[in-house]
Amino acid sequence: MSAFGVRNDVTIQELAWEAVRESLDDSGLEQKDIELSVVGTVNTRGYELMPAVVVNEYSGLTGRGPVRVEAACATGSAALWAAYSAVASGQVDIAIAIGVEKMNEVDTATSLAVGGRAGNYLWEFHMYGTTFPAYYAFYATAHMQKFGTTEEQMAMVAVKNHRYASRNPKAHFQFEVTLEEVLKSRPIAWPLKLLDCSPISDGAAAAVLASEDVARKITDTPVWIEAIGYSSDTSNFTRRPHYLGLEATRKAAEMAYRRAGVEPRQVEVAEVHDCFTIAEIMAYEDLGWVEKGKGGIFIAEGQSELGGKVSVNLSGGLKAKGHPLGATGLAQIYELVKQLREERERGRQAPLRNYIALSHNVGGTGHYAYVTILRR
Amino acid sequence: MSAFGVRNDVTIQELAWEAVRESLDDSGLEQKDIELSVVGTVNTRGYELMPAVVVNEYSGLTGRGPVRVEAACATGSAALWAAYSAVASGQVDIAIAIGVEKMNEVDTATSLAVGGRAGNYLWEFHMYGTTFPAYYAFYATAHMQKFGTTEEQMAMVAVKNHRYASRNPKAHFQFEVTLEEVLKSRPIAWPLKLLDCSPISDGAAAAVLASEDVARKITDTPVWIEAIGYSSDTSNFTRRPHYLGLEATRKAAEMAYRRAGVEPRQVEVAEVHDCFTIAEIMAYEDLGWVEKGKGGIFIAEGQSELGGKVSVNLSGGLKAKGHPLGATGLAQIYELVKQLREERERGRQAPLRNYIALSHNVGGTGHYAYVTILRR
Repeated sequence: MSAFGVRNDVTIQELAWEAVRESLDDSGLEQKDIELSVVGTVNTRGYELMPAVVVNEYSGLTGRGPVRVEAACATGSAALWAAYSAVASGQVDIAIAIGVEKMNEVDTATSLAVGGRAGNYLWEFHMYGTTFPAYYAFYATAHMQKFGTTEEQMAMVAVKNHRYASRNPKAHFQFEVTLEEVLKSRPIAWPLKLLDCSPISDGAAAAVLASEDVARKITDTPVWIEAIGYSSDTSNFTRRPHYLGLEATRKAAEMAYRRAGVEPRQVEVAEVHDCFTIAEIMAYEDLGWVEKGKGGIFIAEGQSELGGKVSVNLSGGLKAKGHPLGATGLAQIYELVKQLREERERGRQAPLRNYIALSHNVGGTGHYAYVTILRR
Repeated sequence: MSAFGVRNDVTIQELAWEAVRESLDDSGLEQKDIELSVVGTVNTRGYELMPAVVVNEYSGLTGRGPVRVEAACATGSAALWAAYSAVASGQVDIAIAIGVEKMNEVDTATSLAVGGRAGNYLWEFHMYGTTFPAYYAFYATAHMQKFGTTEEQMAMVAVKNHRYASRNPKAHFQFEVTLEEVLKSRPIAWPLKLLDCSPISDGAAAAVLASEDVARKITDTPVWIEAIGYSSDTSNFTRRPHYLGLEATRKAAEMAYRRAGVEPRQVEVAEVHDCFTIAEIMAYEDLGWVEKGKGGIFIAEGQSELGGKVSVNLSGGLKAKGHPLGATGLAQIYELVKQLREERERGRQAPLRNYIALSHNVGGTGHYAYVTILRR
């Protein structure tokens, strides 16, 4: 994983290489060992018509990269899934999934417009001018109205995730924030304030995948993909049956738990999609760790802190580690692999007994969802 | 497959549905039977941030579509490959690959600019203004200089493919052209003239894939994917070792033939990537049907005509059937499935003995290549 942040110091291909290089070093492999490369990028920058080609070429993987995948903010997970499918099908033994995004090269107005277009363009953005924070504000107000979730509880998510990001040398925001600072930050789309929102980040992340036999040969510390669950949902925000959680998350989680034979309560460490603080609160519920409506209480009780019922976003999450769309899903995998190997810094290494981890990556406002279960 | 052409009568999702509907009708399946949908689109139109979501929703496949894939002009084949990998891995039994593109909603200047960006943006388009036909003109002139290939031989490809397109009710150009008309058409990038070039088309195509057991249950006329080969190449046109053929095609073909256990001479019917007439001539060579340099003679001798050594582009090819980027690879599969089932119109049904077919789909100027081998 590259350092996340404003990375005007590198091109998209240089940024990707930072992640690929670490992946190769970590796995002890060379480019010639990689049979397949899947690149995930939304390509918000947009000037390269074929971003996967330039990324693969710069990383020395020319000839191995037949495809780019995209699933909005869940693009990194989609890349993992496509590479996983190729390995699991027996077509190749060793693959790499690469996620990369440069988001700071477009201006803020463009970013907002693109974010707004995460809904149905003709019906929502074009007619109502809905921006991305506004979509999540619908969820936040509905959750507050129905369940009594408070602005303070949402702010606690930011405080927690900034605390862990302050201990993560690759995070975009390596500083802590107080509850008061979050609550007093300027409104973006009420009740979401500036410090409830994830930033506009550049970054890259990658993961090497291998078939079971080959994995055992190349490493003493394999981390197994037990299952990848996925789902998608309507592009019309107005057609969602409610605004209290994400159906796509619920369905992807159900598929992942079923395929893996794992119960929600067995998950010890997780990276969840906290693009806004309310999203993390809904994720606790949709992933089955607490009943619907009690997510606010879950964070208030410290159940998602390090050593709680499930240690959530010890990387700092999208909220504070940053959220470069194509990289996010693979950065979650990177974090969880390090967690399962117990290689994290003091103050953000989860205590483990079952060695079961979960990543949760959403595209758009629940248009896509991936849930991946890992085990060491 | 939808009708190809200028399809300003439909939105991208309506266009895709034309192909999905026919796929469902043909397979006797309903949407509820489809476990996974992979959408391929380059999204040249660009206003939908998540084109796969709107396409799946309109086709009644909400929840089943976790990803969009892109591989420039080979995007349709990339979608087939991703769906194939998921089925072959055992994750799902029934999947659909959907390819769709609307190209006529951007103006010609934009199309040319986008086409030019098929090379390396910073080094080629930005510095030299290279457009897409110019790239293939490099190949054409090199082939002429080295092997004595002639403008007449290239024109013969256009005459042949227009002849078959005139018999294909879904083709963009359902008219014949004479050798003289091709040779006298206006120069675009010498030696390529207007009638050497594929058009700017809108269209969609789709394919239903099933695991072996399930396929036998749902149809009496299954067509088997024997293998999919793929490769990619440098984004820097100037780094190609020569301009006499596409290394990506050669490598993808080698992988496909090896995995399928098929020899080039066993292929009886093929759809090859004739974005420009020279591309079809190079494909004869790179796919192993004739030695390098003899592609011009191959067409002149009628070896690629209906009933020749291999019947090539009986659909009309990209050249005359049309080339909507995301749809092209799947439209090739559509054509070959119909050919292998011997369901084509009089005057364009290949005579078959081995029932082995091949599709060849290139992205950019050899940046990507897919070769798929089908057998009935």
